[in-house]
Amino acid sequence: MSRAYNFCAGPATLPESVLRQARDEMLDWRGTGMSVMEMSHRSDEFVEIAETAEKDLRELAGVSSDYAVLFMQGGASSQFATIPLNLLGDQSSADYINTGIWSKKAIAEASRYGQVNVAASSEASGFTTIPEQSTWNTRNDAAYLHYTPNETIGGLEYDFVPDSGAVPLVADMSSNMLSRPLDVSKFGVIYAGAQKNIGPSGLVVVIIRKDLLGKAHKETPTMMNYQVIADNDSMYNTPATYSWYLAGLVFKWLKAQGGVKAMGETNLRKAQKLYGFIDANDFYANPIDPRFRSWMNVPFTLADDGLNDEFLKGANARGLLNLKGHRSVGGMRASLYNAMPEAGVDALIAYMTEFARERG
Amino acid sequence: MSRAYNFCAGPATLPESVLRQARDEMLDWRGTGMSVMEMSHRSDEFVEIAETAEKDLRELAGVSSDYAVLFMQGGASSQFATIPLNLLGDQSSADYINTGIWSKKAIAEASRYGQVNVAASSEASGFTTIPEQSTWNTRNDAAYLHYTPNETIGGLEYDFVPDSGAVPLVADMSSNMLSRPLDVSKFGVIYAGAQKNIGPSGLVVVIIRKDLLGKAHKETPTMMNYQVIADNDSMYNTPATYSWYLAGLVFKWLKAQGGVKAMGETNLRKAQKLYGFIDANDFYANPIDPRFRSWMNVPFTLADDGLNDEFLKGANARGLLNLKGHRSVGGMRASLYNAMPEAGVDALIAYMTEFARERG
Repeated sequence: MSRAYNFCAGPATLPESVLRQARDEMLDWRGTGMSVMEMSHRSDEFVEIAETAEKDLRELAGVSSDYAVLFMQGGASSQFATIPLNLLGDQSSADYINTGIWSKKAIAEASRYGQVNVAASSEASGFTTIPEQSTWNTRNDAAYLHYTPNETIGGLEYDFVPDSGAVPLVADMSSNMLSRPLDVSKFGVIYAGAQKNIGPSGLVVVIIRKDLLGKAHKETPTMMNYQVIADNDSMYNTPATYSWYLAGLVFKWLKAQGGVKAMGETNLRKAQKLYGFIDANDFYANPIDPRFRSWMNVPFTLADDGLNDEFLKGANARGLLNLKGHRSVGGMRASLYNAMPEAGVDALIAYMTEFARERG
Repeated sequence: MSRAYNFCAGPATLPESVLRQARDEMLDWRGTGMSVMEMSHRSDEFVEIAETAEKDLRELAGVSSDYAVLFMQGGASSQFATIPLNLLGDQSSADYINTGIWSKKAIAEASRYGQVNVAASSEASGFTTIPEQSTWNTRNDAAYLHYTPNETIGGLEYDFVPDSGAVPLVADMSSNMLSRPLDVSKFGVIYAGAQKNIGPSGLVVVIIRKDLLGKAHKETPTMMNYQVIADNDSMYNTPATYSWYLAGLVFKWLKAQGGVKAMGETNLRKAQKLYGFIDANDFYANPIDPRFRSWMNVPFTLADDGLNDEFLKGANARGLLNLKGHRSVGGMRASLYNAMPEAGVDALIAYMTEFARERG
């Protein structure tokens, strides 16, 4: 078929122009006679690709020289261990906010390396809201405060950045990195698996305030030691070069779209359209507190679960792919990352309208 | 330029037909309307890609069902920690053979997790040979015996598989995996960073005897726990899907070439041609004990180091790329992995002949 609208939560759709450029450069990058994936990571050509990607990311996200930007491997799930191994230092415990499945995974892994204080949780509500910060049981002597700005599975997103005082704030931004403007200076560490808003899987971007480097537990694997990775410009060993290159193409594309400010406006419009439609149509429902509905991941249910398969089949036939909800939640989920064009949301709403009219 | 002959030690040249297929499938894999890098790793399509790659690798390398095949991230350098974390178990020490820079890196990292007994070393000879196994100080109660079958930087390769008795044999095959036939049943663990003979960087393939699973140290990061990765078919989290796909294309290409037997014959012929030329020409030299010269990485020096830059410049002009030796060794290095066609070796020898005649 021609290019479909792919609503997958991750790995996710990429900008078509990025894929076209990658295709055109596959056998010969700018007259070098090599694919980017065949280049030495220490070659002038690849170092330029790598440095340009970092520079563009710094410009897009507003990352000052107080921060190191790392291009690592292993996904956010590896960071769940890397964070406590590097940041607990002499302190024995860290604060975590539990707002869903990804928070819980981060908490479970950190608990293997130190004491985790779950300072707030919305589990009792079925993760349909974010607890007000005034109710959080955070501590001034915590090694850090970890939270999950967007829960990809639940479709729950913070509309504020927590105030952590002097405690370093750590955020798993895998699913909403670069989706709207952000004040990076409020954070100690931001990490993001690439496969939603940045590029292909196999790459994880880490933005870390430099004063937090150098505190790794002595048993930290060298490849997980932020100081080592920073000191070697993410090339202590061979990095995921092709993924890094593709991330760089996505950053160029983002800049051409007007950067994260323009992207945030588009993402808000896309989300408002879909939630507005769902709220206005009795056949569909979304359970999340409207204030904290994710701009990136929109779960929704049909009035009759027995129609789910038929809904998905019809969607597939129209090139509206991967709308099936996560197995732990059921129903449907439409992920609306940066690379999902507004026309994709329009096409989805048109189909949902038609389906509800015919089968609702 | 047109496609060059790329002698890079890694990331390294890939088969042109593989790159062409990847290019052609970039925007739409088999009518799905998606690139492989946009697919959910849990989709039917990607699971088929992943399983086919594993099946082809098992067939190529002769891997029985006694072994798990894992597709991990972080490169061989991450395995340097993963191996002791998973295999030391209740034992406190492991045996390592030191034959060069990569052996030393593996030893240094393992020493952080347990006692390392360097059972043999060729450091005194400048890593120009492999000590006879009869001289090794290995122990029957070691947790495992680790060696580096091919030293990518030194250009030193074992021509035998060590006999480790009942002790699990562990090998870093990053630079000679699938380059010739191998009896996998002699090994406990084989690991290989992909970026030489398998695919792009960002993927590391691990072949592990199943009885060695389940012994990880309690502080092992979950993403480094072989048992967890095996139990989840390498999809505990999102794997490096695009690299996995490309590895699968390389495996198909290897099968079409006649598999590792045919590849070994070609690789031997390529290496013999180049070493034969070097030995016959006073202008070039290789310092390695002829018995242990690597088929994959051929370091050589010019009679006059002052001509190195001119040699490299002339080579580049002819599309013979990345011949500069590793900074720790100097001189030149030609890497002749599976994807380097014999015609590339012929072109290199023709250039070396001409250069020696004109400048020697």
